[in-house]
Amino acid sequence: MPHIELNSEVPGIPGLFIYRPETARPLTDLANVLMRGPSTLTPGERELIAAYVSGRNDCRFCSLSHTAFAAAQLPGGTELVEQVCADPAHAPVSPKLRALLAIAAAVQESGLKVTADDVAAARAAGATDVEIHDAVLIAAMFSMLNRYVDGLGTIAPENPALYAMQAQDIIAHGYQVPVVGQPPAGGQPEASSPQGS
Amino acid sequence: MPHIELNSEVPGIPGLFIYRPETARPLTDLANVLMRGPSTLTPGERELIAAYVSGRNDCRFCSLSHTAFAAAQLPGGTELVEQVCADPAHAPVSPKLRALLAIAAAVQESGLKVTADDVAAARAAGATDVEIHDAVLIAAMFSMLNRYVDGLGTIAPENPALYAMQAQDIIAHGYQVPVVGQPPAGGQPEASSPQGS
Repeated sequence: MPHIELNSEVPGIPGLFIYRPETARPLTDLANVLMRGPSTLTPGERELIAAYVSGRNDCRFCSLSHTAFAAAQLPGGTELVEQVCADPAHAPVSPKLRALLAIAAAVQESGLKVTADDVAAARAAGATDVEIHDAVLIAAMFSMLNRYVDGLGTIAPENPALYAMQAQDIIAHGYQVPVVGQPPAGGQPEASSPQGS
Repeated sequence: MPHIELNSEVPGIPGLFIYRPETARPLTDLANVLMRGPSTLTPGERELIAAYVSGRNDCRFCSLSHTAFAAAQLPGGTELVEQVCADPAHAPVSPKLRALLAIAAAVQESGLKVTADDVAAARAAGATDVEIHDAVLIAAMFSMLNRYVDGLGTIAPENPALYAMQAQDIIAHGYQVPVVGQPPAGGQPEASSPQGS
């Protein structure tokens, strides 16, 4: 049960967005720019960093959400995402992405854990400075969103189909602030919509 | 020295905002809504939570910034902020604010550390659900911003006067995305502007 009395039954972060639309807007804008805006990292690669950080923070809702969102946008699907979350050093991803995941893991602990060597390794693997910037900010953003979702005790639905359905909605329409009483673009009733983060 | 090659000499988060204006805009919007928008928590109380969380994350730039911003907006000034950061349980703040600081401390560790007892204690001390929501999101937002600032190795100027000057600028104009080559509203040259977070 959520720690505060929300104004809807919507689980996860969309329930918080409905509760406090003033903060939902910039949070959604940030997610769209960083996760879906122009970048040399694909949306799937960025969602993989999100799933990895959310897993490290034990945030069930965000972890299920972004695993589904990454799986829907990467050729390796769910199996690849699970491999990365379990053992990024040996998962079949590019050396560049592996180095960015290592930076994300450091950020998840503390910004102060990122070393010049971590950054040099990412550059040696082909990462640009903007990619390093974005990997740090994605890991930092999920360090916020994971705390937001769990700090208010929101619910994570069990049914994986809900997250997979939401992935298609985000691929089609981007991250959106849910509107109470109006079904999201995908057509499913809002109460079953786990639009992540 | 920052981990990536920035396009200005501006220290702290404003240097990152100049480097990546696409993400600067929603981050600044979020800070303005959450830290300065309509709320039953005063801007000084909200900045106190920011300073406290930034101190717990050992983020020097954010800690100096938000200590100055809180001090400029609270009757107790710097002394009160330092007391709160050192020992919130015994600092002379209201029972409500003390309970919200305890929630913020839990969020700084992990969202999962916030207990129903923490929330019940805040309610018993007079906190509303929106205040509890906002305290959680402020603590979560600084868990992001601290990681962003330190994960990219940005510089924190030593001179406290710079942060105090910036506090006046934020009080007058809110959080702003710095513009390269244009002095901020306060008139000081941008290279010495530590506009926090």
